[in-house]
Amino acid sequence: MRVYLDNNATTIVDPHVFAEMEPFFVQRYGNPNSLHSFASETHPALKTAMEKIYAGIHAPKEDSVVITSCATESNNWVLKSIYFEQILTGKKNHIVVSEVEHPSVIATAKFIESMGCRVTYLPINHEGLIEPDTLREVITDKTALVSIMWANNETGAIFPVYEIGEICAEYGIPFHTDAVQAIGKVPVDVQSMNVDYLTFSAHKFHGPKGVGALYIKKGRELTPLLHGGSQMGGYRSGTLNVPGIVGMGKAMEAAVDALDFEMSDIREMRDAFEDELLKIKDTFVVTPREKRTPNTTLISFRGIEGEAMLWDLNRAGIAASTGSACASEDLEANSVMEAIGAAEDLAHTAIRFSLSRYTTQEELDYTLDAVKQAVERLRNISSSYAYAPEGHESGLDAHH
Amino acid sequence: MRVYLDNNATTIVDPHVFAEMEPFFVQRYGNPNSLHSFASETHPALKTAMEKIYAGIHAPKEDSVVITSCATESNNWVLKSIYFEQILTGKKNHIVVSEVEHPSVIATAKFIESMGCRVTYLPINHEGLIEPDTLREVITDKTALVSIMWANNETGAIFPVYEIGEICAEYGIPFHTDAVQAIGKVPVDVQSMNVDYLTFSAHKFHGPKGVGALYIKKGRELTPLLHGGSQMGGYRSGTLNVPGIVGMGKAMEAAVDALDFEMSDIREMRDAFEDELLKIKDTFVVTPREKRTPNTTLISFRGIEGEAMLWDLNRAGIAASTGSACASEDLEANSVMEAIGAAEDLAHTAIRFSLSRYTTQEELDYTLDAVKQAVERLRNISSSYAYAPEGHESGLDAHH
Repeated sequence: MRVYLDNNATTIVDPHVFAEMEPFFVQRYGNPNSLHSFASETHPALKTAMEKIYAGIHAPKEDSVVITSCATESNNWVLKSIYFEQILTGKKNHIVVSEVEHPSVIATAKFIESMGCRVTYLPINHEGLIEPDTLREVITDKTALVSIMWANNETGAIFPVYEIGEICAEYGIPFHTDAVQAIGKVPVDVQSMNVDYLTFSAHKFHGPKGVGALYIKKGRELTPLLHGGSQMGGYRSGTLNVPGIVGMGKAMEAAVDALDFEMSDIREMRDAFEDELLKIKDTFVVTPREKRTPNTTLISFRGIEGEAMLWDLNRAGIAASTGSACASEDLEANSVMEAIGAAEDLAHTAIRFSLSRYTTQEELDYTLDAVKQAVERLRNISSSYAYAPEGHESGLDAHH
Repeated sequence: MRVYLDNNATTIVDPHVFAEMEPFFVQRYGNPNSLHSFASETHPALKTAMEKIYAGIHAPKEDSVVITSCATESNNWVLKSIYFEQILTGKKNHIVVSEVEHPSVIATAKFIESMGCRVTYLPINHEGLIEPDTLREVITDKTALVSIMWANNETGAIFPVYEIGEICAEYGIPFHTDAVQAIGKVPVDVQSMNVDYLTFSAHKFHGPKGVGALYIKKGRELTPLLHGGSQMGGYRSGTLNVPGIVGMGKAMEAAVDALDFEMSDIREMRDAFEDELLKIKDTFVVTPREKRTPNTTLISFRGIEGEAMLWDLNRAGIAASTGSACASEDLEANSVMEAIGAAEDLAHTAIRFSLSRYTTQEELDYTLDAVKQAVERLRNISSSYAYAPEGHESGLDAHH
């Protein structure tokens, strides 16, 4: 049996999404910006896709949704353009991000920090959550941007983006949220909140890799990251990735259609799965499940190296993760666990299971058995587990 | 009949390329950077693709070929990182580009010019070519970069990149070439010349849209344009576009395989087609054909608005262009014709036909007939043609 429980890293392309993309490789291959029928025959599908993308986040027509190549590009774009426009010009000198942003925000923040921008890395609390009041304490009249993700990729923790948006509005500071882990998992309505920039990526909600987007509120237009032939209204140049955009549109429609299922059925499956995992001795879950996306469990097994567990699961055909796929080749400690202040041995014991609408109960039952076997095998050979005083050292309460 | 003669704008995806990409959407969809079999099952195809891409430009292993989302990204990356590293730090203050670069170079140059960098826009001569000696005249000890395209997208003019590379080496200045229009049309061997950065894009040689690359010579590594999860050796973050990379690899292999055909058969077809076009009265071709890519003809028809001709051809099912697809929605004058100094009425009369290995003789015969009919119809209603003194005003010699 093969079981894919790494949907926060990437997702299977929905076969209906692929079916919509397929004609735009070999048949309708024109460059949409050309002046002939090979170009114009791509326009209806592009228009439909863009309408679905706008509708999926409730973006009004006067705002912009700009297609990019990935969330990493969208996140780099916001931070670097703010750097060019606000920091380099001396108008402002400071931005705020959370300490558990995706690497595409953290690494970009560190880059502009090295170029003279002051950066505050807002801490998370013991539940892996941001406390909005901490934002008030660090904002100054020289703050150019607040960039806080909607939901964390590792824990699934849903950050208080409504409250953060309100605080930003109060101080007149642009607010960017990386919503990569939110689309298709929680309702995303840019009109129901104060948000100026919102990043998302198709491959996280059963669309193709290589296509992302940035929502930009009217009046908050940014200097392009990619200058050139003035595609996308001049905001993002480069020949339009027609099949990618068509795929993203269909994927967004499907994600919105499946949202209730995700929030009820997938959540129930995840909760029951997590309940069973927590019956295993010395297991820990950080963020309360009602404050998480419905598909994600990040769980620590005391005394077990996360990577060792991954290998055992992989041998059983099961795909999980120790955290962000981007960094996972490094075998580093889970960054959220580190941020919470878990002891280093516990920070290395976290495993993330992330479900999707394609996950079945049978797969979860099979995975549970495999996890139990792996725990038994690995704890038998774990020196740290043999000697660790139970329920100690971690700074966390053991659930069981 | 439908005839696609706009291959410098984009190309049909080779069905063999699409066949190689197809399994990586719905079947092998893992994130290559994860730690499980859904990831590792993508690795052999990625490795093969990268090997084909390296081989296609003869890049040695110690150099880097970094996958990007498009040539526009690659071009922005080079210029902006040079800006960050060399201009903003005050080490250098100047770059050189040609005045007929693709908009992704020109617009980026203008952007960094607005941020304090001095930019020289090297002129082309009456044949639409760069004269290498003009480069010597503008280089200073504060020049940080020379960026000159390999072949021009509008005329097909092949620029003297070997000589330019030598001059750059002599002065120790990094040399970047946008080789988007060179791959698959002329031999590209980075070891046979002095080049530090070389841009290319899959969709110009029968690969998919949304995937490009930047070759970087060892020792010339750049600050990333996209910071993040450290994919692509840290040079370009963002989840790998697996089907895109696989497609680019196959497309590169096919382009190299077809190079002889392109340089002999396609060239012969283009030449014969151009000969017939030039038999039409008052037609002009700027760059001598032996100094052009084998697939491109940019031809002016005195007295005929380029866009009017495009519409007539489009009605006959034929796709051509007035120049860069990026700008063609603007109905502007052809930028190369303007740069050469053609009178404005002639700058508006250029039509580009760009062939590919999928072009047939039958299609060219059909197109020739359609062009003749369009010329007759449009000149009959052209006031500028009725009154223009023949062979005058243009600064160009009429071929017929």
